[in-house]
Amino acid sequence: MSKIYVVGIGPGEYEQMTVRAAKALGSCDTIVGYTVYVDLVKEHFAGKEFLTTPMKKEVERCRLAFEEAARGKTVAMICSGDAGVYGMSGLMLEIGMEYPEVEVEVVPGVTAATGGAAVLGAPLIHDFALISLSDLLTPWEKIEKRLLLASEADFVICLYNPSSKKRHDYLKKACDLMMRYKAPETVCGIVGNIGRQGESCRVMTLEELRDTQVDMFTTVFVGNSQTKEIGGKMVTPRGYKNV
Amino acid sequence: MSKIYVVGIGPGEYEQMTVRAAKALGSCDTIVGYTVYVDLVKEHFAGKEFLTTPMKKEVERCRLAFEEAARGKTVAMICSGDAGVYGMSGLMLEIGMEYPEVEVEVVPGVTAATGGAAVLGAPLIHDFALISLSDLLTPWEKIEKRLLLASEADFVICLYNPSSKKRHDYLKKACDLMMRYKAPETVCGIVGNIGRQGESCRVMTLEELRDTQVDMFTTVFVGNSQTKEIGGKMVTPRGYKNV
Repeated sequence: MSKIYVVGIGPGEYEQMTVRAAKALGSCDTIVGYTVYVDLVKEHFAGKEFLTTPMKKEVERCRLAFEEAARGKTVAMICSGDAGVYGMSGLMLEIGMEYPEVEVEVVPGVTAATGGAAVLGAPLIHDFALISLSDLLTPWEKIEKRLLLASEADFVICLYNPSSKKRHDYLKKACDLMMRYKAPETVCGIVGNIGRQGESCRVMTLEELRDTQVDMFTTVFVGNSQTKEIGGKMVTPRGYKNV
Repeated sequence: MSKIYVVGIGPGEYEQMTVRAAKALGSCDTIVGYTVYVDLVKEHFAGKEFLTTPMKKEVERCRLAFEEAARGKTVAMICSGDAGVYGMSGLMLEIGMEYPEVEVEVVPGVTAATGGAAVLGAPLIHDFALISLSDLLTPWEKIEKRLLLASEADFVICLYNPSSKKRHDYLKKACDLMMRYKAPETVCGIVGNIGRQGESCRVMTLEELRDTQVDMFTTVFVGNSQTKEIGGKMVTPRGYKNV
């Protein structure tokens, strides 16, 4: 039986992946992925065959991986961050139904929420909600509803895909929605290029975040009512008692 | 300047930690942690000094780490999963304010939400909320409110600390609350001992989950309205369009 690993390589460069992920990639004949992610790990896996497809060609990329595996190759499909958070593991399992002779194993990784949190300090710590602002596959009304209800519930909120060329004002819209329940002085943070060259972060208020321009490589953290700034770090306490 | 790494070692055994985490532990003189987590990694870091404290002694554990570092040792404080998700990084940064001569670096890891998701298939994939059912540090009313609002928002919900000796009926109570908005046939999954010996998982409906007894080593996943069972796996699609 041939095998495909669906591997989350973590938010950045080689060292951000787990030992298990590195072993899985090391055991493969072929590594498939979006060009940018393949370039992040390529030098550590010399001698492997690399197959890349451009962004938004996810279904094609999955089929490519299964076709390779069906030919007897051991294949790794790599994803940035975790394979199961806005990643490829779901699609791989769905398409995998057409290839019963190929075994699929999902190898988890550090997602941008926890990778970025470590850069900012400790913004999550307790309950949080993860929301993507991309309306490519989700109606904006659904995103809006989630922003409102998650704010009402006083979750720390981590925003993925906060911006793109077409969606340059989405973060501002999201902040306005969250401010219906969260105070303007709520402690927030942004992290860019997590675990990669050019990594940067900034702590600010929700009001300031509203007027901050971010790019698609940025992960945004919006605190809960207890989140504080401590020595330049964004820190959420472990609970609501004795604070 | 002496240094403390606050390291998330991932959900289970050595291989679940990142290459970066393994390097950080390798560079340390002293590894501090809760006994169970130290035992999971001990054999891979021979020659290190290990200091353990029992559960619930978190503040003492943090001070122990800083006292060691203040004596010039390079120290790692290890946490299960990710250091910033119900982990020690927040407390370490807070207590660290008393030790300005010690630098604190947080090293992220795979949290149980993504580690467990990989075992079940792809239950998260899209927006999700993470909620702890432990009311040790959070009033139950707050937990209840979050369960209701997260369900109303149609998040996939991942539950940490779903049970303990004192809280044996909390998962049942949580399921009843979620069923006010989520259908009884919502696809759910549980994973036990993620990444460790005895790892197990099961896919079931929300109605079945309500009557399932889980222990404190179990992570629970409650699907959104689109979550499906595919070939025995729990899979959430990437969005709400074209489904």
